[in-house]
Amino acid sequence: MTNLIRSWVESANAPETNFPLNNLPYGVFSTDGGAPRCGTAIGDSILDLAALETEGVLDFGGTLGTGSWNSFMERGLAEWARLRTELTRLLSEGEPPRPGDLVALENARLHMPFTVAEYTDFYASRNHAFNVGSMFRGPENALPPNWLHIPIGYNGRASSVVVSGTPVRRPHGQLKGPNDEVPRFGPSRRFDIELEMGAVVGQASDGPLAVGEAFDNIFGFVLLNDWSARDIQGWEYQPLGPFQAKATATTISPWIVTAAALEPFRVAPPERELPLLPYLAEPGPMNYDIALEIGLTPEGGRETVISRTNFREMYYSTAQQLAHHSSSGCPMRVGDLLGSGTISGPGKASRGSLLEMSWGGREAIEIDGGTRTFIEDGDTLTLRGAALGNGFQIGFGECSGKLLPSRVLR
Amino acid sequence: MTNLIRSWVESANAPETNFPLNNLPYGVFSTDGGAPRCGTAIGDSILDLAALETEGVLDFGGTLGTGSWNSFMERGLAEWARLRTELTRLLSEGEPPRPGDLVALENARLHMPFTVAEYTDFYASRNHAFNVGSMFRGPENALPPNWLHIPIGYNGRASSVVVSGTPVRRPHGQLKGPNDEVPRFGPSRRFDIELEMGAVVGQASDGPLAVGEAFDNIFGFVLLNDWSARDIQGWEYQPLGPFQAKATATTISPWIVTAAALEPFRVAPPERELPLLPYLAEPGPMNYDIALEIGLTPEGGRETVISRTNFREMYYSTAQQLAHHSSSGCPMRVGDLLGSGTISGPGKASRGSLLEMSWGGREAIEIDGGTRTFIEDGDTLTLRGAALGNGFQIGFGECSGKLLPSRVLR
Repeated sequence: MTNLIRSWVESANAPETNFPLNNLPYGVFSTDGGAPRCGTAIGDSILDLAALETEGVLDFGGTLGTGSWNSFMERGLAEWARLRTELTRLLSEGEPPRPGDLVALENARLHMPFTVAEYTDFYASRNHAFNVGSMFRGPENALPPNWLHIPIGYNGRASSVVVSGTPVRRPHGQLKGPNDEVPRFGPSRRFDIELEMGAVVGQASDGPLAVGEAFDNIFGFVLLNDWSARDIQGWEYQPLGPFQAKATATTISPWIVTAAALEPFRVAPPERELPLLPYLAEPGPMNYDIALEIGLTPEGGRETVISRTNFREMYYSTAQQLAHHSSSGCPMRVGDLLGSGTISGPGKASRGSLLEMSWGGREAIEIDGGTRTFIEDGDTLTLRGAALGNGFQIGFGECSGKLLPSRVLR
Repeated sequence: MTNLIRSWVESANAPETNFPLNNLPYGVFSTDGGAPRCGTAIGDSILDLAALETEGVLDFGGTLGTGSWNSFMERGLAEWARLRTELTRLLSEGEPPRPGDLVALENARLHMPFTVAEYTDFYASRNHAFNVGSMFRGPENALPPNWLHIPIGYNGRASSVVVSGTPVRRPHGQLKGPNDEVPRFGPSRRFDIELEMGAVVGQASDGPLAVGEAFDNIFGFVLLNDWSARDIQGWEYQPLGPFQAKATATTISPWIVTAAALEPFRVAPPERELPLLPYLAEPGPMNYDIALEIGLTPEGGRETVISRTNFREMYYSTAQQLAHHSSSGCPMRVGDLLGSGTISGPGKASRGSLLEMSWGGREAIEIDGGTRTFIEDGDTLTLRGAALGNGFQIGFGECSGKLLPSRVLR
């Protein structure tokens, strides 16, 4: 385990900060209604990378002033490494070129850190697949026959991806309970979260990638909440998969934590229950040890942490998912977002969705001042995550969203 | 039925042309390696709309020089109508402002007519759903319980959409036959086409659309071939739907035939077998009478037309599909592409995929000089379509692609 790299930004040396110098996560921010620009979080501040490029301290072809990390990502792996090296040097030695280059986090508005090209969501945590499969198809058919061979995924809706803090409106949809004769159209009553990690693809490709190549093409990670209307999903998903159940919103955290920052936290995957085909073979450990939690805060109430789990639980790594995604020749693009799939641990306290925590709505969970099966109007759901180092942590910040009541339709 | 509007471009008055003045389809073309620009097809020529805007004959904010129709579409419905009116006047009266503004179709290279924001594929022809359902799940479970209530759709992969003429490479994937103990990774042996229409969304929305509003937001239509690897699909698609089976390529025709041009060809949908929920109610006929056919040409051989069907066969209209797509609050974007789903008629000669024509590969179909179950390397598949008027037709041109052998993987 590496140790803390000390910075002259004193708040970055505190053990509890999400953003020590070891992290250097990339986001897009604005101040006082100005233009969104690229920055890196350091302690309780943001270093204004667009300003540093304007001042000539950095030179990445003007990409840091574009209000999105896509153009920078396109420059390739050597440039990713060069920026990290230069920032590490700038923030460990000396002082900022100009005092104004360091902005207080609390004075900044955070935007989507990148333009989502396309969004894919996977289904790659064994405990989650077993739990949900049991509820939808019974325990004997819980794990589909292909599950131990394929990192199952489906295409999601990129237009619905929003940054942390964006309110989410309870959706309408077609609903049909098991005892209803016909479906009806109305607000979802089983609206849920999914605790996931999102991987940001930083390099385009146009043919099958080996797992090692896929690993190299991942720029970094965000927390991801794949809001899901379980009642819409249950009725619509056969035979072509989830569609409107997952199209209302997907929330991501505002800071892309780079693969480079997470390098010391790579761990081996769980044991393989069946041999994987050679095209999914990993040249090294490609899972990550990242502690995760979900907080639920009712309107005007206090937060309860309702689950604690870890990204290392994934049966398939992000690199395997990307390799599989490209296996048909599917062109991958800079800015593609890959949701890991809900991350559930083995125990009840480590489940990544309310569907699992309440076992299909049958067992309410306790929260401060009440109980929950699914999300109620006014609830705020917050994901947090961090890789824990020796006296420091590589934090992701928060991925948060409040549920608003459904629209009144004409 | 309206009659031919005569043009001074003589070739546009011939009964067999795809592009009479009644059509005015929108594409993107280039000549002599120059920059791609917007044009409209008229008879055997293209009217260079970028040039007309440069000359001041048209004024649409420079959008016609952008090499994509997205910026023009964003200008909205009134501008769509104004361009059509001005072009109809320009091409029926007088002569071109400059002779060079009219380019011979045969000298032009055609590009993607718009940037695909996101791609959604539906499953909305009753005959196709029944045929495929019978093969995948048996005739007793052919039509899923939700099918007569929901225009079933799933998100596809926008990065894989290519313009007619682009070769398609036979994909690799995980394959497992019903008698195989374990899957293997290799080239697809059951590679197929799907004859569809693609609708181009021309206006953004951010909440549930009524069917009438959805209808108005459709800019136009293209032919669409949703290439499908049936063996990959059969093994991967449960429970989250098709993924790599549909990610290799989707080919579209280069000309967007506008909804305005197709207005005289609106027809009522097939009779509803069950009542639809009110949010899917159509304020008028929203299907289209468009004759469709599929040609198969082996390497070095002659074309056989292997199917003839009609877009009017759809159980759900494009407007209903878009209304359903937006029902959860899913944000829709300019340039979203909605595949209708495979269009199969009632008889064997009107099936929209080889899967159906060969009944899962069991009954080879006859072609000139041989037989086929699925596509063989070197085969070219060509879709054609036209709405048939009184002495003229609103043609779509061709949607064509040749299958290349699979890659040799390391």
